Amino acid sequence: MGQEVIKEYIHEYVLNASESNARKEMPLTLLAQRVIEIATEHADILGVGFDVMMEDNLAWVLSRMSIEMTRMPRVREKYSITTWIENYNRHYSERNMEIAGGDGEVIGYVRTIWFAIDLNTRAPGDLSKLESLALTESDRPCPIAKQGRLRPISEPTHVGKYRFRYSDIDFNRHVNSVKYMELLLNQWSLEYHETHDVARFEIAYLQETHFDDDVKINIAQVDKTADAEIVSESGVSCRARIVFG
Amino acid sequence: MGQEVIKEYIHEYVLNASESNARKEMPLTLLAQRVIEIATEHADILGVGFDVMMEDNLAWVLSRMSIEMTRMPRVREKYSITTWIENYNRHYSERNMEIAGGDGEVIGYVRTIWFAIDLNTRAPGDLSKLESLALTESDRPCPIAKQGRLRPISEPTHVGKYRFRYSDIDFNRHVNSVKYMELLLNQWSLEYHETHDVARFEIAYLQETHFDDDVKINIAQVDKTADAEIVSESGVSCRARIVFG
Repeated sequence: MGQEVIKEYIHEYVLNASESNARKEMPLTLLAQRVIEIATEHADILGVGFDVMMEDNLAWVLSRMSIEMTRMPRVREKYSITTWIENYNRHYSERNMEIAGGDGEVIGYVRTIWFAIDLNTRAPGDLSKLESLALTESDRPCPIAKQGRLRPISEPTHVGKYRFRYSDIDFNRHVNSVKYMELLLNQWSLEYHETHDVARFEIAYLQETHFDDDVKINIAQVDKTADAEIVSESGVSCRARIVFG
Repeated sequence: MGQEVIKEYIHEYVLNASESNARKEMPLTLLAQRVIEIATEHADILGVGFDVMMEDNLAWVLSRMSIEMTRMPRVREKYSITTWIENYNRHYSERNMEIAGGDGEVIGYVRTIWFAIDLNTRAPGDLSKLESLALTESDRPCPIAKQGRLRPISEPTHVGKYRFRYSDIDFNRHVNSVKYMELLLNQWSLEYHETHDVARFEIAYLQETHFDDDVKINIAQVDKTADAEIVSESGVSCRARIVFG
């Protein structure tokens, strides 16, 4: 492909006041946005970005994401995200991230799994054409647990509802990955979030949801562990597990 | 203050696929976010940023914003935002922005007005201590109309409702400026947005709204001009005028 193999890609940021939450820290949803952003940037550099995928009518979609943070970046703090591919095969790619704070101290890790969808059939696309990606695998360690199995919720302790609006829809014409996260976190109050960190957030995206779709948000929380799912008329959109600190 | 006077500040960006809307363009809310971001960055450089203001228990809040775009940046396009202060006095500061596309062509302008609030009383703060800001005024032209008077809505053609959630709240512990915009734009369908540009968007922030506040969104649209307001139990949070193209 004539692309240089940059196995690890780093992006440095500063957390602006205008981006911070009421705790004057980075919101978890902004971290997820950055994770998707940096994955997109690295894919561009590796020659498997938006433009190249579009030639085959494919688009990357986030399938799973697990985040573990010991703390979040604070307002005005410099932070960096380093990303690398742990594993690639013709069905999906596993991409990890390490987040470092202003003093270089590692403050968290993220694991992600990416599929490509065929934009005509909306079915998973074949990635075997991108075989050069195998050369970009890095053996840098990611010391957080891989994604676990997220089970259906039988007895919710909380049920919410929502209808997806214009701002929830992204360039893939479906509900944006970060918006599901936002919807899940919105099931707890501001006060709860101010007194509880999210120690681990794990989400599996199962089925697309679209503009004007009505969904139910089912939560089953025992102590600090909450299992969650977002369900539309046509099935389960995503499942998640949130472990509060 | 020992700060260098940089009258015009420019920030260059690339529109990521992951940030784009269903039209594969920059969402208007992301532009507003960038506008707030670049204003924050320039304020930091001028020595009137978050940290300095906090010493006097003050925080900048956006009071008015008018956006006129001939087109939005497109996916993977480089764009830049240049900002400068048009006018400063002890009550508020008027800050403008020029947006240029990848080929350097100017594609739009933004006018903003900023107050500072006293974080204890939540009343407007006195900016006379920041007199050095007067030295930073630039006479660069901003060829879009100043903010007009936005009137109460007597006969809405559409009424929506919403309750503000955790993700709507920012570091000032009130609903974030961009979230009002998002809520307003969400009163139209995906299809409407896909077939209508926003030629001018004008908003005046009147009163803070907080977590769990219930609001009504009143819209009075005649042809392509929509007047809008968001009203909570305690009064009008914001008024806006959207002119579709």
